[in-house]
Order: sequence, then structure tokens, then C-alpha cells
Amino acid sequence: MKYKPSTEGQEIVRPDYRKKIIFSLDDFAEKGHLLQAVTIPSNTRQRLHSHEKQTEVFYILEGEATLSINAVDYVAKPGDAFICSPGDVHNVWNKTDQDFKLVVFKINLPEEGEDSVWLE
Amino acid sequence: MKYKPSTEGQEIVRPDYRKKIIFSLDDFAEKGHLLQAVTIPSNTRQRLHSHEKQTEVFYILEGEATLSINAVDYVAKPGDAFICSPGDVHNVWNKTDQDFKLVVFKINLPEEGEDSVWLE
Repeated sequence: MKYKPSTEGQEIVRPDYRKKIIFSLDDFAEKGHLLQAVTIPSNTRQRLHSHEKQTEVFYILEGEATLSINAVDYVAKPGDAFICSPGDVHNVWNKTDQDFKLVVFKINLPEEGEDSVWLE
Repeated sequence: MKYKPSTEGQEIVRPDYRKKIIFSLDDFAEKGHLLQAVTIPSNTRQRLHSHEKQTEVFYILEGEATLSINAVDYVAKPGDAFICSPGDVHNVWNKTDQDFKLVVFKINLPEEGEDSVWLE
């Protein structure tokens, strides 16, 4: 059993998103899993990227944004969910004046090395 | 890539909770995963239970409830997260007048057979 209150943990700030790792690879008995909360700030476009090995499951929490996956745009709203498989080229573009928040659950995340391919 | 808007899918109603399967075992390339949204209605106590094989990851969305895991009580609020491992005896008791909502991500869910052990 593991418990992580929302008040614990620190956000990692990147130019085009912020993330808080809720449960890291080490928290899981099963290999390759990770849970994180991600915020795309208002009027921010994340760079297009894909992953080599990991599958990402997105569950939208707050706000509205355009999620592009393999050149198809989806208007993502709270309660919507997506599975992004290895090789799927994706990004989030928050065109609104509010933060866009989601939880990301990763499967098959490698323990070492960079798994992201940034396309721009 | 898979997309499931919040407007799709139907809730399954049980005496002590409601659930909507967002992505089922078949939606994942990786074995044993499932994503569901669960609601514990107001003033409702779920029966104590455990799972034989599956690990459950809880991310709290709305409301407040008492989450009991191995006889320890946690006041679960939005943004809190838990990992419930196989054998961990748990339940949710919503003592409030509002619905309590969470997303549950399962790991190692068997494809067949009952994986839950109900203790009451």
C-alpha cells in the first residue's frame, strides 16, 4: 500500500508544461509504471513528440485543450481519456486562459535512458 | 491510439458503488491493464475486500471519503493517490452528502475469473 496526499511532492517546471510525479517507477512492484499529474499552462503549446517504448494513458482533469495525436486534433475535456501508444506523435496545445490538467499513467516506461523523441 | 470521450460508455450500478469502464483489457496492447471511473454515492459504505492478483492505483477526483486500507483510515481528497497491492484489505466509506469520485487504474488484472475477495 502506498499513499501520496496531493499536498506532497513538488512540480517540475518545463518550458511548455509542469509535472508532478505522484508515484515513480520505484513505488510500483510491477516494472515500468509511473503516475504523474501534468499541467499545460494557459496559451501554451507543447512540442510534438513521441515515445519509443512507453504507452501513456491520459485522463483529463481540468480545463480544455487541443490534443493532437498522429495529426488528428481532439478537443480534450474533463473525463475524456486517451491511450497514446509508442510511436504515436502527440502534443497538447492549450489555447485557453485557464490551466489544462491531466493525470498520466505510464506503462512500459524504461528504467533508464531517454524514451522521448522530440520532433521540434 | 485510443480516444474515449466522457460522454461515451455506461455506468454499471452495484449496491455500494457505480463504475464506468473507460478502457478495458482489450483496449491495451499490454496485458492486465484497465482504466475505470468509480463513484461511491453519498452516505455509502463499500464492503471490505481485497484482490488476489491485481494492483489498483487510485487517483481521487471529487468529494471526500474515508479510505480504509489494512485497517488504517485515510481521509481521501481530490488529488490524493493510493496504490493498493494484492492482498491489501480495503474499502471506501463515503460519509458525506456528495458523491465521491475516483479513477482506478488496474495492473495485473487477470483476463478471466474473479479476482476480488469480499470479506463481508
